[in-house]
Amino acid sequence: MINLASFLDSTNLKPEANEDDIHCLCMEAVRYEMAAVCINPYRLALAGKLLADSKVKLCTVIGFPLGADGLKYKIYSASMALDNGADELDLVINIGAVKDRNYKIAGNEIDSMLALKSKRDFIAKIIVETALLTEAELITLIGLINDSGADFIKTSTGFSSRGVSLGDINIINAYKSKHLQVKASGGIKSLALAMELLDLGVNRLGTSSATRLINEYKESQCTSRVDP
Amino acid sequence: MINLASFLDSTNLKPEANEDDIHCLCMEAVRYEMAAVCINPYRLALAGKLLADSKVKLCTVIGFPLGADGLKYKIYSASMALDNGADELDLVINIGAVKDRNYKIAGNEIDSMLALKSKRDFIAKIIVETALLTEAELITLIGLINDSGADFIKTSTGFSSRGVSLGDINIINAYKSKHLQVKASGGIKSLALAMELLDLGVNRLGTSSATRLINEYKESQCTSRVDP
Repeated sequence: MINLASFLDSTNLKPEANEDDIHCLCMEAVRYEMAAVCINPYRLALAGKLLADSKVKLCTVIGFPLGADGLKYKIYSASMALDNGADELDLVINIGAVKDRNYKIAGNEIDSMLALKSKRDFIAKIIVETALLTEAELITLIGLINDSGADFIKTSTGFSSRGVSLGDINIINAYKSKHLQVKASGGIKSLALAMELLDLGVNRLGTSSATRLINEYKESQCTSRVDP
Repeated sequence: MINLASFLDSTNLKPEANEDDIHCLCMEAVRYEMAAVCINPYRLALAGKLLADSKVKLCTVIGFPLGADGLKYKIYSASMALDNGADELDLVINIGAVKDRNYKIAGNEIDSMLALKSKRDFIAKIIVETALLTEAELITLIGLINDSGADFIKTSTGFSSRGVSLGDINIINAYKSKHLQVKASGGIKSLALAMELLDLGVNRLGTSSATRLINEYKESQCTSRVDP
């Protein structure tokens, strides 16, 4: 039996999430000792208070979900998020620049965010939005992220045409450097998919169904003990 | 016969839009003399060059599409967009704050953006995302936007569960002040819907099908002359 909660970034990035929704998200993350809570920047102050005495990390998103804001704006947002207590920043790459084959722009955004580590230590995850990439573009981005020193590559925003696929993870595993960790995200609603992703060695799962997945996993473990 | 193009904000906010896509969008807007081109902040420099010698306005989006970035971040983004040549700013309200019934936060974001008019004149449109609002919330927001001095109320981002409905416009028309203009947006893909919205007095249509709608409209006018 694994500690499923320790792999979960419990996520609520809905624009209409209210204070009660954020409260529940944080309380459940604390109760189950999940890895992190992932919320929009506006909710950092509230979530930071709720998680203050816990080991649950406070994660937010930068340039989310379109990644089309430009360098200065992303760095301002990242800097603000750190000031507001974020432990982990999930940055959406500049997908338009990738489509222009302008990897210098995309890489510079990543490097500039990572330069903020001199200000305060944090975990940096780079969201590539696999749904919008060709395999060649994904492979090029993996190389770029390998070299950047980012902590994680993250597959998806959850706001595009699809979330993570097992195929995405196989490509990432084939090309990523040893030190780069993987966060699978987008559409992880079933325990079966969560387990398949963990079997492929994924280090984190971003999901808006975290508590349900934990409970389903616990039930599945009990069932397998009762019916050997 | 109306000048349909003069009502159109020709829009491409797709994260994967490349330079060629933005080029086509701008060239067609110039050719047909559309009201504005609406693009992501990263594309302001390119689109600004392409529209430089035209009357087509340069429009971008702020806090888009979730509206959950917080006040400082939105104002920084708006200020940057003006520095980068934007003539029109479409700001997504803080929907989470509305759901908390914290209209002070939502109103303060609008007022703070409008305060930038002292720096440079621009058209301010406030996106309320009707898909996520109750009728009571929409009516409260209309009152708030009436009082703010914003130029437009805009219905939708195009990234939520639905775009504009005729019902939205009827509510807006019933509660808006005389001076407040209306931009309908999200899912305006058919000429029939575009015409119904204009019949309701809408001042702008945000659409990613602008050129097609213009051509369909011209064809429909020719057909009605040939077959009386």
